[in-house]
Amino acid sequence: MSESTYTVTGMTCEHCVASVTEEISEIDGVNAVAVDLPTGAVTVTSTLPVAEARIRAAVEEAGYQLAG
Amino acid sequence: MSESTYTVTGMTCEHCVASVTEEISEIDGVNAVAVDLPTGAVTVTSTLPVAEARIRAAVEEAGYQLAG
Repeated sequence: MSESTYTVTGMTCEHCVASVTEEISEIDGVNAVAVDLPTGAVTVTSTLPVAEARIRAAVEEAGYQLAG
Repeated sequence: MSESTYTVTGMTCEHCVASVTEEISEIDGVNAVAVDLPTGAVTVTSTLPVAEARIRAAVEEAGYQLAG
């Protein structure tokens, strides 16, 4: 099991959290997504490590940005 | 045709706008809902005047508050 934490900018409400969670959850191998709205911290748990580029693409698909 | 403008508090993003628009649009007789996110101004156009209580209920159903 692999766990990585990213920072997502632009989320302002629980609808935003739901959108980001939904897009990241669709990535193959992702088991869980936990979002802390105040900090933008997004923790992704997956069976195998997921390339950051895939996380970034999912976040952008939801309409937000990965920090850094 | 009747047009009234209300102020809704708590909307932070376009998802919030969509939720409020959807709930108010479901009220009988409502033809159009226009939301200005920065100010929270919500303009409702309807065939007949709509009781403020119905607007308030729809806004609260969406998870927001009518100011005043």
